[in-house]
Amino acid sequence: MKNVVMIGGMAAGCKAAARLKRLEPDYKVTIIEKKSFVSFGTCGMPFFASGDIDSFSELMSTPYGLVRDQKFFKDSKDIDIIINSEVIRIDTDKKIVTYKNVESGDVSKIKYDELVLGTGAKPLDARFKCPVSDNISTFHNPLDAKRFRQKAQTGQIGKAVVIGGGYIGCELAEALVSLWGIETTLIELEDHLLTKCMDKDISKLLETVYSKEDVDIRLSSKVEKIELDKEGMPIVYSEDGWNSGAVDHVFLCMGIKPNVSLAESIGVKIGELGGIIVNDSLQTSIPTIWAAGDCIESNNIITGKPSLFPLGSLANRQGRVIADNIAGKDSKFKGAIGTISMKVFGFITASAGLTEMEAKRLNYKAEVVTASFYDRPDYHPDSKNLFAKLVYDKSIMRLLGLQLAGYGEVTRYIDSFSVFASNGMTCYDLIDFEHAYTPTHSGPMNPLNSLGAMAISQEEGIQCISYLDAKDFIGQIIDLREEVEIQANPYAENAVFYSIMDYRMHFNEFDKDKPLLVVCQKGPRSYEAAISFIQNGFKDVRYLGGGVQMAQQLLEEGELD
Amino acid sequence: MKNVVMIGGMAAGCKAAARLKRLEPDYKVTIIEKKSFVSFGTCGMPFFASGDIDSFSELMSTPYGLVRDQKFFKDSKDIDIIINSEVIRIDTDKKIVTYKNVESGDVSKIKYDELVLGTGAKPLDARFKCPVSDNISTFHNPLDAKRFRQKAQTGQIGKAVVIGGGYIGCELAEALVSLWGIETTLIELEDHLLTKCMDKDISKLLETVYSKEDVDIRLSSKVEKIELDKEGMPIVYSEDGWNSGAVDHVFLCMGIKPNVSLAESIGVKIGELGGIIVNDSLQTSIPTIWAAGDCIESNNIITGKPSLFPLGSLANRQGRVIADNIAGKDSKFKGAIGTISMKVFGFITASAGLTEMEAKRLNYKAEVVTASFYDRPDYHPDSKNLFAKLVYDKSIMRLLGLQLAGYGEVTRYIDSFSVFASNGMTCYDLIDFEHAYTPTHSGPMNPLNSLGAMAISQEEGIQCISYLDAKDFIGQIIDLREEVEIQANPYAENAVFYSIMDYRMHFNEFDKDKPLLVVCQKGPRSYEAAISFIQNGFKDVRYLGGGVQMAQQLLEEGELD
Repeated sequence: MKNVVMIGGMAAGCKAAARLKRLEPDYKVTIIEKKSFVSFGTCGMPFFASGDIDSFSELMSTPYGLVRDQKFFKDSKDIDIIINSEVIRIDTDKKIVTYKNVESGDVSKIKYDELVLGTGAKPLDARFKCPVSDNISTFHNPLDAKRFRQKAQTGQIGKAVVIGGGYIGCELAEALVSLWGIETTLIELEDHLLTKCMDKDISKLLETVYSKEDVDIRLSSKVEKIELDKEGMPIVYSEDGWNSGAVDHVFLCMGIKPNVSLAESIGVKIGELGGIIVNDSLQTSIPTIWAAGDCIESNNIITGKPSLFPLGSLANRQGRVIADNIAGKDSKFKGAIGTISMKVFGFITASAGLTEMEAKRLNYKAEVVTASFYDRPDYHPDSKNLFAKLVYDKSIMRLLGLQLAGYGEVTRYIDSFSVFASNGMTCYDLIDFEHAYTPTHSGPMNPLNSLGAMAISQEEGIQCISYLDAKDFIGQIIDLREEVEIQANPYAENAVFYSIMDYRMHFNEFDKDKPLLVVCQKGPRSYEAAISFIQNGFKDVRYLGGGVQMAQQLLEEGELD
Repeated sequence: MKNVVMIGGMAAGCKAAARLKRLEPDYKVTIIEKKSFVSFGTCGMPFFASGDIDSFSELMSTPYGLVRDQKFFKDSKDIDIIINSEVIRIDTDKKIVTYKNVESGDVSKIKYDELVLGTGAKPLDARFKCPVSDNISTFHNPLDAKRFRQKAQTGQIGKAVVIGGGYIGCELAEALVSLWGIETTLIELEDHLLTKCMDKDISKLLETVYSKEDVDIRLSSKVEKIELDKEGMPIVYSEDGWNSGAVDHVFLCMGIKPNVSLAESIGVKIGELGGIIVNDSLQTSIPTIWAAGDCIESNNIITGKPSLFPLGSLANRQGRVIADNIAGKDSKFKGAIGTISMKVFGFITASAGLTEMEAKRLNYKAEVVTASFYDRPDYHPDSKNLFAKLVYDKSIMRLLGLQLAGYGEVTRYIDSFSVFASNGMTCYDLIDFEHAYTPTHSGPMNPLNSLGAMAISQEEGIQCISYLDAKDFIGQIIDLREEVEIQANPYAENAVFYSIMDYRMHFNEFDKDKPLLVVCQKGPRSYEAAISFIQNGFKDVRYLGGGVQMAQQLLEEGELD
């Protein structure tokens, strides 16, 4: 028999507790949680905020209607839960946790043999002047969501500013606009949204979505301060001189950091990224203390280095690993690559692994291809555009990362890519990817097959150029589209126009020694023609990866091509 | 320079031709096709038949509106296409192909250095008496689809019989009913639909879908004969004495076989399954002759044995491999596992690898787990049921196959599974599967994580039983559902009912030495409780995998659980 205490009753702690009781029913397992509830679907908060989920208690209920409260955990799983209790001291010699009830102030102690830290993350502090006000809040814990919704429901928010264009900021901005009709400004310090997961070329597609929905996106904008006007309404000022005017609410979504103050206080080693250091059994530097979830640094399978992956899915898997190890089963957490997706206004973005920017920062020989696909055969009525960017290490053709965006089959391909990249596979392996083919769901070649082939071709000399780089292109341009396509979406006025049907007759009208950019609507025609130009002696040929479709952010199905 | 001739202008031949011209622009590449068109989206036929795709020419057009005809291939790709021409002789010594124009009867010859056979498949012959009639047809080539649609559009089909419940038969039956309102009977020889890809337990979910739509499904029904009545209307008779009465049309969808008569005539080796034998470069037994697509046997990656995989997706990839090899690049086709999906009446089925039945026939130590999941968190409004069956080799925990069904995220998980299974991975690897988690698209644990964990637990003694086997269960049953769930969908009258909240108080009311079946709505509660019973000394405990949800074919989201 062992006493096992979990500090923190969210995904990691609850999963570890439940699994451990299944493996070792005689163990006494206790969860200590600061809030008044445990096992809350935190990731569902934006959907509660948006109204997609109607009741707060839905986020803490089982599918069969029982609320995951103390009684539920005790009766169904024989797990003890202590809520409203903050851990104030851990004596690692005597193995005693001291905690205080945040309501009554009562202090209690509990002995442990093994301790699990699931202390999560906390919002990054503002690096600008930010007054304390009911009209300024983070959107981090369930009470934030509850307060927001009360305010929104009673019509108290007409105008809002969201500071921070990461996942939470982006999802929240959508909720504000789409359900509550709130006039919303989204401010991001960097030059594009979702900088941690997306490069600029794919992220700009997302910006287009927000713009269509009249969200005011302010990029490369550094907030200088927030002040309150006479009525206590906040005004956001940025360093470039812009200000928001008085708004009803400001949301601080500048990101999170591991919550490690408790771990630090007992001498558990903290890593360079600010998270608890664990080995692959998820053991901290103190052998009887384990840690999981948003508070740890875990292995990035691609780089082999510690990374922060604050994802509920990983917290769950990590909880399982800890339970196994405490029960004496050898279990490892191999790490993660960071696979994530988001849906706003129906538009889905997803990414896995490294961005081009990050890969280059880490000195990989990173190369990229960009592409636009149909996610189904073009003749199928459900066919939608899918935009993609593949990042690979050209020295060994290893897969480094993928970014996808579109209204259709996005998560499907990011998931499959995740399996390839998590297992050290290459662009060649993508060509062998066997997807479930039927025209209702995909074309005979899938996007990963094509991206793999494009990457391999690129290393053989068929160079892809992304539309952002193509803006700086100086040289000859040939646009291979049909007249009706060009009229609908003109690309370059200085281009020479020949159809894919007759460009072969006109090789001699171009200068073989000058750079040549080949353009079409989505990419395949220009890819094919680029090869012909190269074979006919042209020295510097590129094709526009993703075509005019990506260059002009033509997101919707039903566009011309 | 080489002369390369492709026989057959569908996926394999066209892909090989296009790729080869990109690699070797100086080669002369010629496609000989019996029909009047090439590069036709054959897989789109059922959608043309159903009216989802309006125009026949859409299936042979590029996305930018050009028809993929002789002129298109010549002008854009420099490929010669000879249509309406049947190959009547191949002289492998002199390397000459002789072909005859099917309209004019003119005979011509063409020399080759390398020959590619893409002769496809042909319908299996009926093994019953089947008269020749305009009212009886296969649904194999585009002209079949065109004729059907003309007949349907002019109201000439009120009643129809489809013989054969494979993919084509199932898709066609949906098209008949959903768009044309035709009273349809679907006859299958075996005891369930899609026998090659699905076991009975998952396939029955699909039957429920057809039944809801009033398709008359007749299983285990052997057709004895088809006769014509005085008006020339066909009547289908089965050996059990049933007959269809006079109907307007009978569709023969009993499956296909490789079309190898030409290959046989020149001594190319044919395999036991009736397909052309090729090596992993896709070379036949005659070195200058290559073959790809539905006419070949290719390596089954799971069994290591030759299999028939008549899928357009594989034909495409094989065409690429042949082009590479002819151009002197070393390229291999590793094989396939058979990953496929289908959508009828909005319900999606998908499978990859071996069924349980096939795995046992091949003497694998095959074990299975069955499960019902939500494809998103249960609190999310888009959440839908997902039914699953995993087949694995218990001796090494290797993944053998997966079957999925539901209205939601089906293809996503079959694709990821395909990557795992195609690369020889195990149930342990499934636990490490990192999917893109966000509540709009998935729960924190994904179905593959859970299936892997269930399989591993099963080998540790936590036995899952499928609802079909549970029908024969003799022993004690405990139903752990809440009262409202039981009332909505009663399962077993002789069950003892305790909530997950209080069953732990009642262990001593059961006999530890008698078999015990633990039941809940979807599986997780009974899984957890089964462990408790085992830990409390019960000798023979099983939980109902997939729960009452699967047992009673509760397909829709919005069901109670």
